[in-house]
Amino acid sequence: MERQDKDLAFMLQYENIAWFEDGKVRILDRRCYPRTVSFVTCEHYGEVAQAITDMVTQSAGPYTAAAMGMALAAHECRDRSEAEQRAFLASAADCISTARPTTAKRMRQICKTMTDAAEAAWASGANVAEAIKARAIEANNSRYSKIAKMAVYLVEQIPAGGTVMTQCFAETIVGMMLKEAKAQGKTFRLFCPETRPYFQGARLTATVCYEMGFDVTVITDNMPAFVMQREHVDVFTSAADAICMDGHVINKVGTFQIAIAAKYMGIPYFVTGAPDLVHPTAKDVKIEMRDPDFVLQAMGVKTARDGVKGYYPAFDVTPPELVSGVVTDQGIFCPYDLWRYAKTGSTGEYEVVV
Amino acid sequence: MERQDKDLAFMLQYENIAWFEDGKVRILDRRCYPRTVSFVTCEHYGEVAQAITDMVTQSAGPYTAAAMGMALAAHECRDRSEAEQRAFLASAADCISTARPTTAKRMRQICKTMTDAAEAAWASGANVAEAIKARAIEANNSRYSKIAKMAVYLVEQIPAGGTVMTQCFAETIVGMMLKEAKAQGKTFRLFCPETRPYFQGARLTATVCYEMGFDVTVITDNMPAFVMQREHVDVFTSAADAICMDGHVINKVGTFQIAIAAKYMGIPYFVTGAPDLVHPTAKDVKIEMRDPDFVLQAMGVKTARDGVKGYYPAFDVTPPELVSGVVTDQGIFCPYDLWRYAKTGSTGEYEVVV
Repeated sequence: MERQDKDLAFMLQYENIAWFEDGKVRILDRRCYPRTVSFVTCEHYGEVAQAITDMVTQSAGPYTAAAMGMALAAHECRDRSEAEQRAFLASAADCISTARPTTAKRMRQICKTMTDAAEAAWASGANVAEAIKARAIEANNSRYSKIAKMAVYLVEQIPAGGTVMTQCFAETIVGMMLKEAKAQGKTFRLFCPETRPYFQGARLTATVCYEMGFDVTVITDNMPAFVMQREHVDVFTSAADAICMDGHVINKVGTFQIAIAAKYMGIPYFVTGAPDLVHPTAKDVKIEMRDPDFVLQAMGVKTARDGVKGYYPAFDVTPPELVSGVVTDQGIFCPYDLWRYAKTGSTGEYEVVV
Repeated sequence: MERQDKDLAFMLQYENIAWFEDGKVRILDRRCYPRTVSFVTCEHYGEVAQAITDMVTQSAGPYTAAAMGMALAAHECRDRSEAEQRAFLASAADCISTARPTTAKRMRQICKTMTDAAEAAWASGANVAEAIKARAIEANNSRYSKIAKMAVYLVEQIPAGGTVMTQCFAETIVGMMLKEAKAQGKTFRLFCPETRPYFQGARLTATVCYEMGFDVTVITDNMPAFVMQREHVDVFTSAADAICMDGHVINKVGTFQIAIAAKYMGIPYFVTGAPDLVHPTAKDVKIEMRDPDFVLQAMGVKTARDGVKGYYPAFDVTPPELVSGVVTDQGIFCPYDLWRYAKTGSTGEYEVVV
């Protein structure tokens, strides 16, 4: 089984993100990483779905977890008839796909890819769980190689010795961007907003940048405009939970206001990822509202007094007018012309098929 | 000794913010309020300066603390000769004024007012410490009555049943705004960004709003643009650590980017406070950079891994093009025409004399 480049940080290795083995899926708990390295172990696909709902893993982590969860589901029903297994996997796909509403369509595609692998295994008499796992790894390797191509285009936009602002944890593209820069002998510094309420920027993005040997500085989420103005930021970049075909970008809440500030200051905003054929417009995406009480604490310590309300949109929507370019595996596209990407023949980083 | 309206929340009563009595200055520790109500007790004026540096109190709190600290200084040197007392108070004024760089000029004015009160006490044979304390209370009462006038102008701009976004803890004006609204029978809801890294919005602003009986919701600092877009915010308002005569507003970091987002969405931004004659332009204000490690934790719990750097500008600068109006005790002024305010005859909320 081929594992990814060891040059990338620990948490970017997908056998650490989520991994099916010995009848269990083990998921790195990103809620406490890097100060605590621990794993959530799931013995039922429902626990994988729950872990995704609970944000044990996020960014691209849920896609790997979903695929591995499907392998676990196949393992769970391995002694039943083929018809029963098919029904069991269909239930698992439903359960896992709907673990978080904003990414449900993309997750359904991934589960579909895994049930297709199961069909092939039944036809050939192979071990279904292992066939799904192998397909999950293949899909990830394919995704990683597409993201490596995006990284080349993205790094071209960053001046040597320049300054990059990130948002939230963009997982693979952050590691690939830094790997590509190192390969070119190009260096730059990064400012990472901490990304409340989960602190993905402070905990995850900054860790990857640091472990890859880059100069990285964490700021709080109220500082991006100040930093852009005073620290000569050259590029603002983020990944996306969905890039709609109409050029709207769905990403971690905060992306929208950093993009507004970037536009105000004349700093380009590059979003990385493949345009998402399953989301023709922003209206096709449901913004997940999470438990409002979660914003009334930080790192487990209560902030506000009792009685005060919270409010927790997990994502926001950045309109195409604020997006300078969509950095794909096929080059940088104008956010107003994303259907052209569909004509390149690329199936996108998640191999999305409509 | 006249105390302020009991209708305002506990922490807005200046005998709780900072109070000289029995040879000590007692300062409410806003770093842990409201979940813990505790006080820092200072027996030397240097401890008052240190408490201001350490952000035991902030917003307008340091101005009250500075004045009470001067009373403490007078108490400390009460048995010395008048010449020695004068020198002692001059040293105390230097020490207290420079506790935080951004507000040094305003603080120096307040200390000057207090040494003037000492001069009058020496001339009349009154108790110097008590004379300074009485002057501090008089100055606060004067400030509160000016802020009550600002509140009338501000509340006029808020539609009944509307939505207000705040930034950081605007202390007296928040309480006065809500008191004025109640007096008019007008209600509205408030969204308070939590204001990292100290959480003044979550802890202080939201507490005052809640205790005044208003519908208040805390959001994280990456959510203002989303909330403006989805929750129909009518007005964004903040106080300021300095309103420069050229219309630039110095306030808690984050104000700038919320003002950019407000402008983008067509929402007016009203800053409250008197234009600051001691700051002709934004260049006359030094932005305080605080301990960068403080942004690498939240509520005392570390977030980032060791080795990652932090960055902590306490304030930012919002240019006049983003300011819809400067709400003063003399009406709402255009940020490009603030010298006209100086001609109204008002000495400003801090009785600043150039």
